[in-house]
Amino acid sequence: MSATILSGSELAKGMRAEIEAEVQAFVQAHGYPPAAAVIRAGEDPASVSYANALEKALGGRGLGFKLHTLPDSASQQEIVDLVARLNADTSVHGIMVQEPLPKGIDEAAVKEALSPEKDVDGVHPVNAGRLAQAAPVGRPPMVGPFFVPATPAGGMEILKRNKIKIQGKHAVVVGRSNIVGKPMALLLLRENASVSLCHSQTEDLPGMCRTADILCAAVGRASMIKGDWIKPGAIVIDFGVNFAGDKMVGDVDFEEAVQVAGMITPVPGGTGPMTNIMLMMNTVRAAKMAAGLK
Amino acid sequence: MSATILSGSELAKGMRAEIEAEVQAFVQAHGYPPAAAVIRAGEDPASVSYANALEKALGGRGLGFKLHTLPDSASQQEIVDLVARLNADTSVHGIMVQEPLPKGIDEAAVKEALSPEKDVDGVHPVNAGRLAQAAPVGRPPMVGPFFVPATPAGGMEILKRNKIKIQGKHAVVVGRSNIVGKPMALLLLRENASVSLCHSQTEDLPGMCRTADILCAAVGRASMIKGDWIKPGAIVIDFGVNFAGDKMVGDVDFEEAVQVAGMITPVPGGTGPMTNIMLMMNTVRAAKMAAGLK
Repeated sequence: MSATILSGSELAKGMRAEIEAEVQAFVQAHGYPPAAAVIRAGEDPASVSYANALEKALGGRGLGFKLHTLPDSASQQEIVDLVARLNADTSVHGIMVQEPLPKGIDEAAVKEALSPEKDVDGVHPVNAGRLAQAAPVGRPPMVGPFFVPATPAGGMEILKRNKIKIQGKHAVVVGRSNIVGKPMALLLLRENASVSLCHSQTEDLPGMCRTADILCAAVGRASMIKGDWIKPGAIVIDFGVNFAGDKMVGDVDFEEAVQVAGMITPVPGGTGPMTNIMLMMNTVRAAKMAAGLK
Repeated sequence: MSATILSGSELAKGMRAEIEAEVQAFVQAHGYPPAAAVIRAGEDPASVSYANALEKALGGRGLGFKLHTLPDSASQQEIVDLVARLNADTSVHGIMVQEPLPKGIDEAAVKEALSPEKDVDGVHPVNAGRLAQAAPVGRPPMVGPFFVPATPAGGMEILKRNKIKIQGKHAVVVGRSNIVGKPMALLLLRENASVSLCHSQTEDLPGMCRTADILCAAVGRASMIKGDWIKPGAIVIDFGVNFAGDKMVGDVDFEEAVQVAGMITPVPGGTGPMTNIMLMMNTVRAAKMAAGLK
């Protein structure tokens, strides 16, 4: 048996058209596009290429994009001042601060300087806290509006658009980063899954993985999760982006897993293409909120 | 075999002396005591008796305490104005808003009106978010200082002061409230447990519970968790406060569980007495932070 492939590339293609239509309608109504700003301090090569890809993605859909660069020598105050200026700029609806920040910069203070209403990648603690405190979906949320980090939001979109049942299922999330593992666990919980969070210190990781109806991998170690760690028929969502030589591979051993799982996201072409999509969706939403629309 | 009883009453007794000593030292250094304020709108009987108990507990240890009552007809603005006045009052270090608030009041907005530095019960989303984002204990936290809800903080204190190994263990938390279940899960995660969160929609709750090395119950249903849901030798932390007739019982069937578990908190006398202790600890800490001490 070979698993059904959950293609993020295909899904992203369809969603790009949705976003373009939304952006066009927004521009017609308001005379300006939803716009995102990216702050980068220094010239980390991965950050540079990510910003370029983002510019192309947003520009291609009609969204505004502006990159603000500071030198590697930028001070805390200079970075926070730039954040404050963009917070106050009504033509900017979403702000992302690229990591890594230069040595000696207090990353937490920079994140907390963001206006939560423009924090389209959900890194501000108010957004993390509202996600943690929000009631299950379908009930009144009991918290203010919030943004969710784009990568796990993209994973959830794959599950939902493929109509995969989450409610009551046992989801196991491997990895507990603030941008993928923990928010993914909280998102699955809001959809009424039972959720287990595992990590480097988990005593029997293969055993925990084997209990998963939905297995999410966000560890950052090439092909770590083996075929026999997967319950036959399970749904596997792989957030890993690793390189084995010059080949991009996920956290899951795809060749093995595809024989066991019921459905699986490939790497590349799985969760990856969804991240920019969700950033665009969040930017459109931020612009609508700023315009008093929702 | 009968489980070791983890007495919260005994632990609380010892900690009261610690708190008194800390409060005395603080008063000597600063000339005023750490002080908490409680806001209550309306006369919900459980809230009235809780506020009375809190006043006795804090007063008895030398902490300041002031109850601020508003009528059941209080408006959103009146409540938020009172919060703002207490935020600005430098003689007040901790503020708690009692629930339930009158009908029609936006509880989330009241919580967000609290100064996070005075939110000693950890209900503000900034505190929830910093808890969610904080690195594991022992590493630099990578977030600002935060307060944790008192009830799960008390449960953690029972585990830690009894030197129960958490790291690598599988902790199962049943119940996902914002004041117990979810923060307890995040606290256990910070201590490097693998953590599973279960709830009313979990498909095989007895089976999930049986996999727990540390089982935490925070459901609010009398004696729901049976002896045969517990792995022999497991640690059981019962946050339940329910009444069976006029007898106070937990969420765990104690008579059955005590035969199976390795250690168990009783109800009453387990996690309950620790809640006020942690509120006092948090109030002392808030006063120290306000005085620039930590």
